[in-house]
Amino acid sequence: MTDFAAWSRAIQARAENVLAALLPDAAIAPEKLHAAMRYATLGGGKRVRPMLAYAASEAVGAEVLGTEAARIDYAAAAVELIHVYSLTHDDLPCMDDDDLRRGKPTCHVAYDEATALLVGDALQSLAFEVLAHPDAAAAADARVEMLRLLARASGSRGMAGGQAVDLAATGRSLDMAELEFMHIHKTGALIQAAVLLGALGKGALETATRKSLERYARCIGLAFQVMDDILDAQTDTATLGKTAGKDAAQGKATYLTLMNVKEARAYAHELLHDALEAIQPFGERSRRLAQIARFIVERSY
Amino acid sequence: MTDFAAWSRAIQARAENVLAALLPDAAIAPEKLHAAMRYATLGGGKRVRPMLAYAASEAVGAEVLGTEAARIDYAAAAVELIHVYSLTHDDLPCMDDDDLRRGKPTCHVAYDEATALLVGDALQSLAFEVLAHPDAAAAADARVEMLRLLARASGSRGMAGGQAVDLAATGRSLDMAELEFMHIHKTGALIQAAVLLGALGKGALETATRKSLERYARCIGLAFQVMDDILDAQTDTATLGKTAGKDAAQGKATYLTLMNVKEARAYAHELLHDALEAIQPFGERSRRLAQIARFIVERSY
Repeated sequence: MTDFAAWSRAIQARAENVLAALLPDAAIAPEKLHAAMRYATLGGGKRVRPMLAYAASEAVGAEVLGTEAARIDYAAAAVELIHVYSLTHDDLPCMDDDDLRRGKPTCHVAYDEATALLVGDALQSLAFEVLAHPDAAAAADARVEMLRLLARASGSRGMAGGQAVDLAATGRSLDMAELEFMHIHKTGALIQAAVLLGALGKGALETATRKSLERYARCIGLAFQVMDDILDAQTDTATLGKTAGKDAAQGKATYLTLMNVKEARAYAHELLHDALEAIQPFGERSRRLAQIARFIVERSY
Repeated sequence: MTDFAAWSRAIQARAENVLAALLPDAAIAPEKLHAAMRYATLGGGKRVRPMLAYAASEAVGAEVLGTEAARIDYAAAAVELIHVYSLTHDDLPCMDDDDLRRGKPTCHVAYDEATALLVGDALQSLAFEVLAHPDAAAAADARVEMLRLLARASGSRGMAGGQAVDLAATGRSLDMAELEFMHIHKTGALIQAAVLLGALGKGALETATRKSLERYARCIGLAFQVMDDILDAQTDTATLGKTAGKDAAQGKATYLTLMNVKEARAYAHELLHDALEAIQPFGERSRRLAQIARFIVERSY
């Protein structure tokens, strides 16, 4: 196993344990809702956003998996809870109407639509509750800034706004600027939040540091989406763990409606190059951020 | 117009202005989502939760509608945004499937289901963004406590949990303990949050003060629900501004399945008495809280 594979498995296991401890026990009333929240959240997922939070924390000098790790746990879990809520709502019949996610039936298939709606709603609340935990940052003012950043990244000028643009775009063609506006909101905002929250756990950021991290996040967010489009078109459902070929079937605008696969791969590598350049000032401490960027562009699922 | 009627209209107007300023403009992309968020939130509603926040603030000594009012605006708006998100999701076809709210077509009728889902999601995020605003409390640690309290009141051990209990209860009979467990979560948690956030805007609360406010909130939350059940059974749709007779039609457990109207009115007055007793220690400063409690039990819509 490569060094990165071992690290990412350790982070995945850590994120799983932290999430399992933060989610209400399925024996606590209302039991069905709590069981469904755990079903939607646990036992799967690449946990890219938690990885980014821990790696960004390391880039600004925190001892990840050391004494400061506990603080990052809350930020990493909060971002992942927002991500899982968005997947749960996105899979509902009135949105993408999907029945497979992370290799399992989606939440509304395993439970029912009303429960899946409430699961998403309650996971969003839990994300903010977790990030408001006294141990989530050294100082209260840093915590407030983190809460505000996550709320903005999740809302109508972030992720939820990106979903709305996606809805409006279905069935019509987008140009490159429109497509990237959508992605920067729909997935980019939360990826950027993961990076910044991880770094902010250590304390306030200097402007140059913040700008470097934002540029890195923007590039890997777009690269993630370019690769998603390629994988959606070229990979089977079993490997993806979610329904393949969905974008074309639903008439969604993707990078592959604007360029061919070879061009898309070249664009992803260009974005990877820019992401690596953005984090050069951090030197060796940004090793994990660099590895995640490479993983995003070279992954097969 | 009575003194309370004038005050409540002033608060309603203030809440409307604050919400209108905090919601993204409908000209900002994604335009449809922002227009729908404004449609769901503005131009209606009793604004009971904002009233409670301002009145609780006054009870602990803040100058409401004076210099400290701006701080309460954020708490009042945040609680109302959570309330409106919950109504928007509650009206969806997979939940209560209702087409009338505050005298207007519900959000998914006026727009579409996917948009109404995103409206609720984005309003929840906006509530936390608003409460994390630098002007929302004097000190950062008070703001973090307020954020945590609102998140917990909204989530699976609060409002969303109450919705899940309500879902599970539809079509079967509940005893008094089960019915009140549901209401304490579904509506009580957010009413209590409104009271506590209003008071916390002034600063940390002593245990006795907090306990008094919690008891007051618990009593008026239940009284609100008892009256809702009576009004749902006895009032026409035009007066209510939402579909009347819905509970019986959907086989929902209500107070009127456990007692007759006369008993239910007596119970509401008993709760009113307890609420007024709880706030006696605040003296004349709790005048508005007392008036709201009376309004809840004596209202006709």
